[in-house]
Amino acid sequence: MSILYKMSERIFELEKQGVKVTRLNIGDPGLVTPEALTEACISAIKAGKTKYASAQGEKELLDEIASLQGCSAKNVVATPGSKWACFALLQTTLNKGDNIVCPTPYWATFSDMANQFGAAAKLLKAEFEERWQFDAEKLKELVDKKTKIIILNNPTNPTSVEYDDALVKAIVEYAQDKKVLVFMDEAYRDISFRHQNLTKYAEGLAITNSFSKGYAMSGWRAGYLAASEEIVKRIVKLNQITFTNVPVFIQAAALEGLKRRKEITAIAREECLKRLKAAEKALTGAEYVKPDAGFYMFLKCPDGEKAAEKCLEKGVGVTPGTAFGDHPDFLRVSLSHSPEVLAPALEKVKEAIGETK
Amino acid sequence: MSILYKMSERIFELEKQGVKVTRLNIGDPGLVTPEALTEACISAIKAGKTKYASAQGEKELLDEIASLQGCSAKNVVATPGSKWACFALLQTTLNKGDNIVCPTPYWATFSDMANQFGAAAKLLKAEFEERWQFDAEKLKELVDKKTKIIILNNPTNPTSVEYDDALVKAIVEYAQDKKVLVFMDEAYRDISFRHQNLTKYAEGLAITNSFSKGYAMSGWRAGYLAASEEIVKRIVKLNQITFTNVPVFIQAAALEGLKRRKEITAIAREECLKRLKAAEKALTGAEYVKPDAGFYMFLKCPDGEKAAEKCLEKGVGVTPGTAFGDHPDFLRVSLSHSPEVLAPALEKVKEAIGETK
Repeated sequence: MSILYKMSERIFELEKQGVKVTRLNIGDPGLVTPEALTEACISAIKAGKTKYASAQGEKELLDEIASLQGCSAKNVVATPGSKWACFALLQTTLNKGDNIVCPTPYWATFSDMANQFGAAAKLLKAEFEERWQFDAEKLKELVDKKTKIIILNNPTNPTSVEYDDALVKAIVEYAQDKKVLVFMDEAYRDISFRHQNLTKYAEGLAITNSFSKGYAMSGWRAGYLAASEEIVKRIVKLNQITFTNVPVFIQAAALEGLKRRKEITAIAREECLKRLKAAEKALTGAEYVKPDAGFYMFLKCPDGEKAAEKCLEKGVGVTPGTAFGDHPDFLRVSLSHSPEVLAPALEKVKEAIGETK
Repeated sequence: MSILYKMSERIFELEKQGVKVTRLNIGDPGLVTPEALTEACISAIKAGKTKYASAQGEKELLDEIASLQGCSAKNVVATPGSKWACFALLQTTLNKGDNIVCPTPYWATFSDMANQFGAAAKLLKAEFEERWQFDAEKLKELVDKKTKIIILNNPTNPTSVEYDDALVKAIVEYAQDKKVLVFMDEAYRDISFRHQNLTKYAEGLAITNSFSKGYAMSGWRAGYLAASEEIVKRIVKLNQITFTNVPVFIQAAALEGLKRRKEITAIAREECLKRLKAAEKALTGAEYVKPDAGFYMFLKCPDGEKAAEKCLEKGVGVTPGTAFGDHPDFLRVSLSHSPEVLAPALEKVKEAIGETK
């Protein structure tokens, strides 16, 4: 089990035992789901939308997503989170001996998933000094005959940094030429402080987005994949023998979110920005690349694992950098609470970092 | 894709195009989720139980299930339906070249799942003339060194028949002796007309139950697995890299259901019985083994696939027997509607069977 989930289950376990932990360790913005979305869900429940449904998704939702992603509804499948979109894509694409290519720091679940299918993850380490921008040429060098997918999570978890446009363009063009699929994980795009334009679907791309972050629907488990019809068909088939369908009343909330996308995602974005400002104040003196999006900060520290343990002793959950690739001298804090809760918790994080020096 | 899901998606597709189909083809009891459960869900949503949560499940729900199944909460994992419980068990147990053993008629998804992992399904055909009771000795003969799991779905989809107690006992004892896991799928136990006693957890067993049928929560996707701690740990790990957690507000509805189990499952059971009576009247002259449980009838007919096509032409969705193993001379109807809707639809089914003679 990856360190990310070990830490997460450990904290859930501590909480079950009654220990109070300020969780800055999980990828949850910690925002209240907007009332328009919960109301759409409740109305759907009351209208009896509680039956088995299409493993691809409800027509209205697929149409709305298709229009947003610039494709046909046939190119879209609703999933229980963008995590499932990725898992299902990998499960139905990778064979034993294949590999995926991905820059780090990264969401290590990509590797966990690939390994599940006997495939390897070939990782390219990006550097703090380069604002976490990876070297396109070096990434291309990692691609071999067994490479099935290049994964770009943009903006990136855990750094909250966006890859430069030219860099993304270079990789996409290279991959299209080489007939290697590019999986674009845009789960944090809606809460980018720069722009919220989703990548339009094109051949050779598989794009996922999540309702977890920008729509504050983390625990609802709703997301989607836009990809070729062939990939969508494979995933629908997998959905049928696994979870069957995203509950229709959850799809109703997601649909309401998409219809009010501008207004709803702005709420999450503004809240993220407010927290980031509070965090930057609390963390004065800490080293990090300034986030372009979302609610993670990837802090430099002498020993991330030791610091994470010390944080937990102080009642704060954080995730060591080793959970995100070969980055032992970092740790990730999620700004998953209001500025009032964040400020004292981040003080403790700063203390913990100091104590590991 | 198995015939079951092909038919199902085909009908969803027809409906998206505006064609009206009376769906007697899916495993949905078609009952309204009891208000106490929807209210528990709505309260949880309003209380903000919408965040990421434990991949194993909420403590209260796990405790309640453990008490029902006679085990520790450590032996329980909440899943998005019993289907996921089975998929996850197979994914984390089977290697390429392994096999599962199962009597038929059966829910062919077991095979679809096993095949997904390069494992085979060794099937034993039970006979209509034997009230669908399989031959224990013949089932044992199918078990070899590569057999990892024997699956008993009891009461059984699609026949709605219960295996005789002595038969189940013989298989469980044999499997425990041979160290082969028995997977007991009890998704229809709560709506058995005979008794609703769940099999107690014991070493060598993995027991799943679903909230879909007895609690009328099909589209909610809620179920669980009771198994060894080791199996539970493996599945929690898989949950973390796939769908993360069953939404907490859905677990709240499930918990409310378990707390009122007797009262809630009685509603579904009585409705099933009422429909069965209506269906038996409408199907006078048809041949089938009288159901012990639930809402399926497995009807004898000269050519199940042809009859299913004819039914669809008449606006009624049913599933041919070939979807449930080597049973071409049967078809399954789900009594998924009120007696008023069922009666005319079943008339058409009877007509269709007649036309294939």
